[in-house]
Amino acid sequence: MDFGRILILIPLILLSFVSSNDSHSIIRMRTDLSDSYAGVRKIRVDDSLYCDSWRFVIEANDAGKWSTVPKRCLEFVKEYMTGGRYTSDSEIVADYAVAFAKTVNVSTNRKDAWVFDIDETLLSNLPYYRDNEYGSEPFDEASFDLWVDSSVAPALPASLRLYNELRKLNFTIFLLTGRTENQRTSTIENMLFAGYSGWEKLFLRGASDLGKLATVYKSEKRREIESAGYTIHGNSGDQWSDLTGFAVATRSFKLPNPMYYIA
Amino acid sequence: MDFGRILILIPLILLSFVSSNDSHSIIRMRTDLSDSYAGVRKIRVDDSLYCDSWRFVIEANDAGKWSTVPKRCLEFVKEYMTGGRYTSDSEIVADYAVAFAKTVNVSTNRKDAWVFDIDETLLSNLPYYRDNEYGSEPFDEASFDLWVDSSVAPALPASLRLYNELRKLNFTIFLLTGRTENQRTSTIENMLFAGYSGWEKLFLRGASDLGKLATVYKSEKRREIESAGYTIHGNSGDQWSDLTGFAVATRSFKLPNPMYYIA
Repeated sequence: MDFGRILILIPLILLSFVSSNDSHSIIRMRTDLSDSYAGVRKIRVDDSLYCDSWRFVIEANDAGKWSTVPKRCLEFVKEYMTGGRYTSDSEIVADYAVAFAKTVNVSTNRKDAWVFDIDETLLSNLPYYRDNEYGSEPFDEASFDLWVDSSVAPALPASLRLYNELRKLNFTIFLLTGRTENQRTSTIENMLFAGYSGWEKLFLRGASDLGKLATVYKSEKRREIESAGYTIHGNSGDQWSDLTGFAVATRSFKLPNPMYYIA
Repeated sequence: MDFGRILILIPLILLSFVSSNDSHSIIRMRTDLSDSYAGVRKIRVDDSLYCDSWRFVIEANDAGKWSTVPKRCLEFVKEYMTGGRYTSDSEIVADYAVAFAKTVNVSTNRKDAWVFDIDETLLSNLPYYRDNEYGSEPFDEASFDLWVDSSVAPALPASLRLYNELRKLNFTIFLLTGRTENQRTSTIENMLFAGYSGWEKLFLRGASDLGKLATVYKSEKRREIESAGYTIHGNSGDQWSDLTGFAVATRSFKLPNPMYYIA
């Protein structure tokens, strides 16, 4: 043991014992709510702290499949979506995507591609979710389909900026959505209404795609794009099932979405 | 156009135009700082809002490779790491990991495996980073190696709880770290000091692994584990390079780490 090591050891052994006590407290608190270690108890009780961590686990894909926003997090999600944080997060994601796009040496053969998901990526269904408890109520397909048919979802401003920047940089843009073929017309109408134009192709779920997990369906379509000679440099989506699987892009850009999960 | 559609349309067209104006403001603000759209300007100026979004992009792997915490986010990261949010996030990640582990039908043949990274996963180097500007200074290998040799890093309490729970459930535990073989003794000493025991095998980078990206090195080792007949049900790590590549686990658990990035 050298001198430097001793110097580091002295204060830290003390600190490590503190930490070790903490972990015992965590185990104890499960049976003893009068436990005096307020810090960890606070985590379980404080909605704002808990919901921020809940958002971490769903955005980092730690949670796996989840169905609805926990009731105790409804106010948190509402505040996140409407109070500036959602806008901020999606703007910074777009900043990183634009910065990456500018490093790509885009050739003149139109074979440099970017794949976009649509819902909560290019279009925002926030007006619908504002009227439907921000994802804390079970998903209601009938009312959502009616909303889709109305074709009035606004653009997510950060993504519209990225989209237009990519077009200027001469990327070929593919739209790859879990929406179904019978929603093709309303989807195109909505995209134009929101200010998008000039995409190469819009993929929607056809009859043979209906039973597939989104990850599989989207991977297959990306492979189709690659087989046609394209290089998929970037992929933007709000779900991990937009971005993982096979034929993944060089860089994937996960947008925030604490309102719902698609497997 | 049916009646339901018209009902939805009326208020939302207005809303969509507001959103469309926002996106124009975003583009304008890049050349005109006197722009009146305070919301988006706030994102760029407000350190707390910006740094929260910066944390989103690094945790969601949107940022790709990054070297140091932005100077303007030093205070944010310090507060995140020491003010309860880091503890909360890692506790909730452990909750989800435990919940998943309990769904696994662990057989008696000892072939049900869980892979753990070490630094910022089982062990916390927070005492080191507290003395080194929480990752906002360039990484200093010499002083970090001295810290590793001291073998006094405390356990991350949430991970110690998960680890002990997995042992009770009869999972076989593998440790897979980017630390090198010459750090084997100090690593074992530190793990025991922090309260860990009973792992099956500790993988460190050998001579032939030194030039490899962490993703490749770790994928190769996971494949080795699988080839020995194990099923890797869970994998815990603070870096995406701990969790992605090939031979990935059934479920991966990304722990928070806003202090450094490993490719």
